[in-house]
Amino acid sequence: MDATTLRKAADTIRILSAEAIQKAKSGHPGMPMGNADFAMVLWAKYLRHNPADPTWIGRDRFVLSAGHGSMLIYSLLHLFNYGLSMDELKNFRQWGSLTPGHPEFGHTRGVDITTGPLGSGFGSAVGMAIAAKHFAARIGLDKTDIQQSRIFVISGDGCMMEGNTSEAASLAGHLKLDNLIVFYDDNNITIEGNTGLAFTENVAARYAAYDWRVLRCDDANDVAKVDAVLAEAVKTDGRPTLIIGKTKIGYGAPNKAGTHGCHGEPLGDEELAATKANLGWTEEPFTVPRAVKDMLAGRVKELAAEAAAWNEKFAAFVKSADKALIDSLINRTVPENILDELLAAAPVDKPVASRASSGTILQKASALVPALVGGAADLAPSTKTAVKGAGDFSAEDRAGRNLHFGIRELEMGMAGNGMALFGTAIPYTSTFAVFSDYMKPAIRLAAIQKLHELYIFTHDSFYVGEDGPTHEPIEQLAMLRSIPDMTVFRPAEAHEVAHCWAAALKKQGPVAMMMTRQDLRPFDADLAAKIDVTRGAYILSEDAGFEAVILASGSEVNLALDAAAILRGEGRKVRIVSVPSLETFLRQDAAFRESILPNACRKRISIEAGTTPMWYALVGLDGLAIGLDHFGASAPYKKLAQEFGFTPEAVADKVRAYLKA
Amino acid sequence: MDATTLRKAADTIRILSAEAIQKAKSGHPGMPMGNADFAMVLWAKYLRHNPADPTWIGRDRFVLSAGHGSMLIYSLLHLFNYGLSMDELKNFRQWGSLTPGHPEFGHTRGVDITTGPLGSGFGSAVGMAIAAKHFAARIGLDKTDIQQSRIFVISGDGCMMEGNTSEAASLAGHLKLDNLIVFYDDNNITIEGNTGLAFTENVAARYAAYDWRVLRCDDANDVAKVDAVLAEAVKTDGRPTLIIGKTKIGYGAPNKAGTHGCHGEPLGDEELAATKANLGWTEEPFTVPRAVKDMLAGRVKELAAEAAAWNEKFAAFVKSADKALIDSLINRTVPENILDELLAAAPVDKPVASRASSGTILQKASALVPALVGGAADLAPSTKTAVKGAGDFSAEDRAGRNLHFGIRELEMGMAGNGMALFGTAIPYTSTFAVFSDYMKPAIRLAAIQKLHELYIFTHDSFYVGEDGPTHEPIEQLAMLRSIPDMTVFRPAEAHEVAHCWAAALKKQGPVAMMMTRQDLRPFDADLAAKIDVTRGAYILSEDAGFEAVILASGSEVNLALDAAAILRGEGRKVRIVSVPSLETFLRQDAAFRESILPNACRKRISIEAGTTPMWYALVGLDGLAIGLDHFGASAPYKKLAQEFGFTPEAVADKVRAYLKA
Repeated sequence: MDATTLRKAADTIRILSAEAIQKAKSGHPGMPMGNADFAMVLWAKYLRHNPADPTWIGRDRFVLSAGHGSMLIYSLLHLFNYGLSMDELKNFRQWGSLTPGHPEFGHTRGVDITTGPLGSGFGSAVGMAIAAKHFAARIGLDKTDIQQSRIFVISGDGCMMEGNTSEAASLAGHLKLDNLIVFYDDNNITIEGNTGLAFTENVAARYAAYDWRVLRCDDANDVAKVDAVLAEAVKTDGRPTLIIGKTKIGYGAPNKAGTHGCHGEPLGDEELAATKANLGWTEEPFTVPRAVKDMLAGRVKELAAEAAAWNEKFAAFVKSADKALIDSLINRTVPENILDELLAAAPVDKPVASRASSGTILQKASALVPALVGGAADLAPSTKTAVKGAGDFSAEDRAGRNLHFGIRELEMGMAGNGMALFGTAIPYTSTFAVFSDYMKPAIRLAAIQKLHELYIFTHDSFYVGEDGPTHEPIEQLAMLRSIPDMTVFRPAEAHEVAHCWAAALKKQGPVAMMMTRQDLRPFDADLAAKIDVTRGAYILSEDAGFEAVILASGSEVNLALDAAAILRGEGRKVRIVSVPSLETFLRQDAAFRESILPNACRKRISIEAGTTPMWYALVGLDGLAIGLDHFGASAPYKKLAQEFGFTPEAVADKVRAYLKA
Repeated sequence: MDATTLRKAADTIRILSAEAIQKAKSGHPGMPMGNADFAMVLWAKYLRHNPADPTWIGRDRFVLSAGHGSMLIYSLLHLFNYGLSMDELKNFRQWGSLTPGHPEFGHTRGVDITTGPLGSGFGSAVGMAIAAKHFAARIGLDKTDIQQSRIFVISGDGCMMEGNTSEAASLAGHLKLDNLIVFYDDNNITIEGNTGLAFTENVAARYAAYDWRVLRCDDANDVAKVDAVLAEAVKTDGRPTLIIGKTKIGYGAPNKAGTHGCHGEPLGDEELAATKANLGWTEEPFTVPRAVKDMLAGRVKELAAEAAAWNEKFAAFVKSADKALIDSLINRTVPENILDELLAAAPVDKPVASRASSGTILQKASALVPALVGGAADLAPSTKTAVKGAGDFSAEDRAGRNLHFGIRELEMGMAGNGMALFGTAIPYTSTFAVFSDYMKPAIRLAAIQKLHELYIFTHDSFYVGEDGPTHEPIEQLAMLRSIPDMTVFRPAEAHEVAHCWAAALKKQGPVAMMMTRQDLRPFDADLAAKIDVTRGAYILSEDAGFEAVILASGSEVNLALDAAAILRGEGRKVRIVSVPSLETFLRQDAAFRESILPNACRKRISIEAGTTPMWYALVGLDGLAIGLDHFGASAPYKKLAQEFGFTPEAVADKVRAYLKA
């Protein structure tokens, strides 16, 4: 590929981006214009991809961490013949187009990840790099000369400032993820002005401190210099690589380049015309120059041939390897009979904390689902999430299935997303439920991308006890349940834990499982036979002619049973409904909801050790929501249960008064 | 103070901590035992504090960022005669005690900040350091020889790993906060085992990259070495200081020191006895040695005298300075007539986005409330949060009132908390509403500590438009509203914006204000006269004999009015209720709630561009909640409003069908 045409191809990105943004009257031209040269050289000469097969398992992954520069990737997808038409570029940021404001995984062919929230792409790229190493080691690919996947990232000042990427970079350096190459678009401009306003640290020295290799490109708007630095970057030295590239934001725009005026709004017709003149651009609007088209068409053919060659080698390798394992990882297979298997493993002979029964069940699930890989943010001994005998993933052992994320909850979440996106893992991550707060941005991105991953959040209520209010979840259930496309399970005891685990493994989107610190009495066989968590709620116990429905989740289900026993002793008749997943229940059809909560019965009580407002969607204005709408306190949990009214007697008193009223 | 008694005093911390934790059968002995020497030397020789007056404005602040080591600070508070009795130490982690599991601001005299969530103390300490510099510069104290406050922090491996502290350290280095001295307890142990499992970066090099001064103490269990490094640390070189101190976790425990076995559980009676023998400890349980008592009693007297001398100098300084300003900052004064003043400033003559009217009102509020100081996470031009003419806070201008936090949302939140805790600022912080996700851990800590600070979250719904789902809040309102002790305002137009700002300034706890990107039609004078945001909801408009109540918040209030106009044209009679603060309304007494939402009227409709479940607490099972229970999309906002059913016609159609049903 000659440098002149490469440069022209980069100019094509610039012009298509500026034109589409101008037409949409919305967008960020500065980033694609500044990064066009790096991106074009990367895609044309280094990135191993196959436009004819965007989900090719052997490909390198491309992460546009600075997702606001979405026209960069849309231009590339168009130019490399991914099937993104020029009409789609013309419909940038319009309803129903394939070119939304930020790149969306699952929406636009060839987009490997949804980005936009700054730092998130970088954070997830580390998860992709982990998954790539792990997949290769699990199946033995690392013992062959077959090329493994690399992860290329384009990030900006925002990515560098976000704490998430600090966690990510520290972890990546520790794990020696030499399959990770991050380009840092060092353009000195942010929205409030010059980066000097808030960001004067020495980024290179910081990354060296993380044990990264740091390369520099003093002019990343020069395709030859970009080519040179990429040639060096792909020669691994055993560490992740940061390329600090000096660019000019809005490169090519004669008056606005280098200013924050071209960051977040269209150039304007005048400046767009001036840019074309400045770049010697003479094409009609939304037109790719012939020479660029020809050059890239040739490259796309080569890429297809390279992918075919890889596939052939891989197929041969599979024959000599553990094909069942490989299939299981690539398909993320979950056995049909998983529920029976997990139920058989559940410890149901005595009271155990659900974190403990979850831990026991995880051992079995891990054996049955090879794709299941995960760990905790330095809390595995407490969250019971280590799998015995599965090894620790480390620089020395890439096949280990226990991940040590360190005390980095947000990066754990982002890495989980990256692992799920890579395509060969069902990741699980874990911390105390209260620290799901740190992970919220990552969990939201998992839900937006409908990624199949599991969160094991333990110590799920004030029953944490002595650690006090900073460690006692109150509103976290509401936070998690309110995320669209998210499932939250809060199992009542060990049988329900097994059911929730099985349902979580069979689902397609993200699932949070809330587990207790304290022991939970197991259901007897009769009760256990009634469990069905898949529709969010089920009838656990009822008296004929019941006058009220008592709903409860998690540790409060036994409490509801015990309170009901008192009331039943007084002649009251009740139905008790276990609600392992409130938001799942709300999503059911009216007939099912009626079968659980008959419209005619408005005497309804909910019990949950958390904030109450969302429960009114079930109990209504005439209902009684027993919960905790204030922060917790530090004391042994039995004392807290007394003080907060979470004893059978206290609940029975409240219900009795309510029914009399 | 002689080294032998100092060492004995440190041993006293160790023993009291181990004894209290043993008695509680719960707690973290390793941290206080390992950090006892550093903490004792700091408190006895360097920290400027006055046990007789724990809120003394001139004091240095102490931040136990590794909050799980709470017995360290409780021991110190007891030893330094803060009034924390030995009985309280014996009641460690018990209901109603002053010694909860993690230190709690506002609960225990002498505790400057609530800590526990790792990294949060460090993050807030940067805010305290900002506030200290700012306060001194605002009043001219920096031009005198009167000693300014310094911030001392004890942090651990967890603090170092959390991304929050990376953001904090980068910001502190940038701002040259040389009043910040952080001790890093480098003990190589975390819960999952050796820090080498997940954390092998070069911390010293990283902090040097942030432009911190890095000092080392190769044995921070040696009081002489600690003394030497602190003597150096307090001689500022114009940068923040990190002291990397090698300690042994659980120092003194002969068998468990240096292992993670002493991190999170009591030593056990046997090991406690062995520890006493090892340290030559012969006192009765829960006893302070005579020599230690005498030495510290003398020191407490000196400290009182030093504080008195400072107060005298400060009083003399105040006489020659702007006393009104100083009083206003120290009392965080808000004028009584703030509402009238802000209403007069509100732009009500044409439609404006609430972010814009908020920006206009902020200018006025800033002039009227000198304590108001804040900024954005690199989004001030979009969130309209810069105050004209107020200057930028920087290393060169400490009096500037506009803060540039950089793209560091979580640290912005933590810093806001620290500024509020310092005691001379009402901080406001700002970003896009969707990125409140990043700030959740900090917002929760603001609520737990009941800190008076304001969050200005703009771009508060799908009306963001082209930026698409990653930038469109859906569930953030539910997340924020579900936090106990939190107030969330979502004003409908410019008058309500002024009301919300006034209410927010008069409140004591944290307040989030949700502002739109898009224009909002102002109420006419009649409607504006009805506004009362202080109880969460008020009647905006009603027809005699109304058959239904329509509730709405923020940008949906005008939509409710417009839909009602259609329905009224058809003869329908309705009451329209504006709900600027849903959770505030839920906290009102039954009589007030009845006055707004009569129990007899069950035909209720809510309209809000966000998730619906929480609204059922108002509309009930027979109500209709119009909202958005899925992620947004990328398109011009008017198109989204059509597609998502947020037009007057679409709403009227739904309400009509609902009323007919």
